[in-house]
Amino acid sequence: MRVAVIGLGKAGLPLAAVIADSGIEVIGVDLDEEKCGMINSGKNPIPEETGLDELIRKHGGRKLKATPDYEGAADCDAYIVIVPLLLDDLKNPDFRILESAFRGVGRILKKGDIVVLETTVPPGTTETLVREWLEEGSGLKLGEFYLAYSPERIMTGYSISRLREFPKVIGGVDEESGRRAYKLYSKFIPNLHLVSNARTAEFIKVIEGCYRDVNIALANELFKIAEELGVDFYEAREKANHEYCHIHLPSTGVGGHCIPVYPWFLIREMERREKYDHARLLRVSRELNDEMINYWAERVVLECMKVNKPLSEVKICIKGITFRKGVKEIYHSRNLALAKLLAEKGLDVGVYDEMFTPEEVKELGLEWREPEEADVVFDCFELRLDK
Amino acid sequence: MRVAVIGLGKAGLPLAAVIADSGIEVIGVDLDEEKCGMINSGKNPIPEETGLDELIRKHGGRKLKATPDYEGAADCDAYIVIVPLLLDDLKNPDFRILESAFRGVGRILKKGDIVVLETTVPPGTTETLVREWLEEGSGLKLGEFYLAYSPERIMTGYSISRLREFPKVIGGVDEESGRRAYKLYSKFIPNLHLVSNARTAEFIKVIEGCYRDVNIALANELFKIAEELGVDFYEAREKANHEYCHIHLPSTGVGGHCIPVYPWFLIREMERREKYDHARLLRVSRELNDEMINYWAERVVLECMKVNKPLSEVKICIKGITFRKGVKEIYHSRNLALAKLLAEKGLDVGVYDEMFTPEEVKELGLEWREPEEADVVFDCFELRLDK
Repeated sequence: MRVAVIGLGKAGLPLAAVIADSGIEVIGVDLDEEKCGMINSGKNPIPEETGLDELIRKHGGRKLKATPDYEGAADCDAYIVIVPLLLDDLKNPDFRILESAFRGVGRILKKGDIVVLETTVPPGTTETLVREWLEEGSGLKLGEFYLAYSPERIMTGYSISRLREFPKVIGGVDEESGRRAYKLYSKFIPNLHLVSNARTAEFIKVIEGCYRDVNIALANELFKIAEELGVDFYEAREKANHEYCHIHLPSTGVGGHCIPVYPWFLIREMERREKYDHARLLRVSRELNDEMINYWAERVVLECMKVNKPLSEVKICIKGITFRKGVKEIYHSRNLALAKLLAEKGLDVGVYDEMFTPEEVKELGLEWREPEEADVVFDCFELRLDK
Repeated sequence: MRVAVIGLGKAGLPLAAVIADSGIEVIGVDLDEEKCGMINSGKNPIPEETGLDELIRKHGGRKLKATPDYEGAADCDAYIVIVPLLLDDLKNPDFRILESAFRGVGRILKKGDIVVLETTVPPGTTETLVREWLEEGSGLKLGEFYLAYSPERIMTGYSISRLREFPKVIGGVDEESGRRAYKLYSKFIPNLHLVSNARTAEFIKVIEGCYRDVNIALANELFKIAEELGVDFYEAREKANHEYCHIHLPSTGVGGHCIPVYPWFLIREMERREKYDHARLLRVSRELNDEMINYWAERVVLECMKVNKPLSEVKICIKGITFRKGVKEIYHSRNLALAKLLAEKGLDVGVYDEMFTPEEVKELGLEWREPEEADVVFDCFELRLDK
């Protein structure tokens, strides 16, 4: 048995390594030739992932071979697809990367093969779009191949332990697909749960993200109210939380590829069905989180007012521009958006982030500024305004 | 030392009993003379409260004496107020019961006494309204008496164990009040936490309720989306929930004196301050929960369409009219509201609830109907429609 993993990114590579470590031969497919070369020579391209170094050193170029061509994976029996799905400017899913991956798989798909998608997608995607792409690409019909969905539940830095301990769900687009996919994944995922169908598995992953987004929005709203009332939000939160109460932390909003993306899958699908009121809370939460940068921009400006200079001359430093502390990723980063918003208002804003060089910051169209050189510093992760 | 507990309801009586059980003499004040008589003869008026029978049998009429008159509590050193705060028709807090209780306490308040409020109130109430009522009633000034806030965290049926195990917070309107209140409560509350001030303690209790309300609204929204997508919500929820994900259960909305009430405290306060966008999520959640009866009314009517009779002749049974299963309380019951909504539409609706008699149901302006005699039965707790 040989398994292909399409996409060797933050989610795909740990999965490929764990499968190889279970004794199965894995062919990883990734367009990035340099990355493939690294893996084949036992070098880990994602060093921040705990435990991955060891697995790549052990299996890279042996049990785990990487290739930039789909044809290199032509004699596999199973294809696991785990590539990014982003939103376009209109907040609709941009399926191009996904489509290209499945058309690639379709070209090499043989009778009896099984395909499993791991990317988080709008519920219904596997049984409709993915099936179509595969049938068109391969000339086969579902039943001649098998198709299932199993959402990745990685967490940057902890992906290996998540794969080995955390519950993982899997569902087929038909019963036989579910049965076979479950049997396959059982070989390398210890805590595996078969659910009714692929759509249910898709829905499960999306609503986890929705829970997070809505609860971060709630934390942001309660934080604003606490500030208005003169109550220390953090003190109140600590004492309010217990077994049945899980108030989250406030923030400048929610960035990254996951949480701010998934609610849109349900919002847009309900709009398509003209069930406009069916995703009200999800939408308000999305708006609330995205609009937090306006709140923080106001707070920064009010702090600038305290400096004995004309507003446009107050040196502002936005400290921390990644979407999350310690992860060098700026997709939908609200901290970056906040810096740009302040710059658009004609304020003298620079940014500082220990994960970036001044040159990298310049490429993002922003100025570098050390906190010590600023009149007002806003720490985006601590939500602290200092003079 | 003698402690007075004003209000011997579901929250007040368990507290009074626990204080008495710690060895302190307690005078309970409650307008209900019959209830006072029961307590004084060792009979428990709230038999559904686990462990309360034993405490009332042991202390009723001895360490715990009940009286309908404030004067009967005139020689106490501490006054704990725990009376209901409801909303008026315009969703504003109706302070009349609270005011009357504090004016009653004011009449008997002496220098050096301490007063603690336990009722859930809008943050700021203790330091403003309560202080005013007490100062006006007693002629004393704060400093001559002490004032603090400690929210009840009871849960019907488990109040005694909550008082003995669950964390409880307390905060004073000034430092000395906080210090003294903490010292007093330490005598009978093992898991006690002093917070910065009364306002923080008030806020803590209110945001716990907001977390619940918003998360129930989220569950209701995700349930509607799951139904639309043809996904079994309960299956998805079970698999989505884990250590970091706590998706709640869907419902006909949220009833009772607590969760549907508390968000309005913050919503109305933000409106008063003309910070209209500061409580958007809380407001949408409240609307969403209250409007769930429209969703269920539609579902019931669609089920009625399947019966081979004119719509107005289909016999509907709404099963379960209390706000929560097993608690005989109909304040803001959405199940009752659903039955009334269907009746207003000219449908033939009757209700069934094992906690009520047909006569009691009639007094509520509704018809009694056994589930077996109906064409369509909607179980409000199981959310199940049966023919």
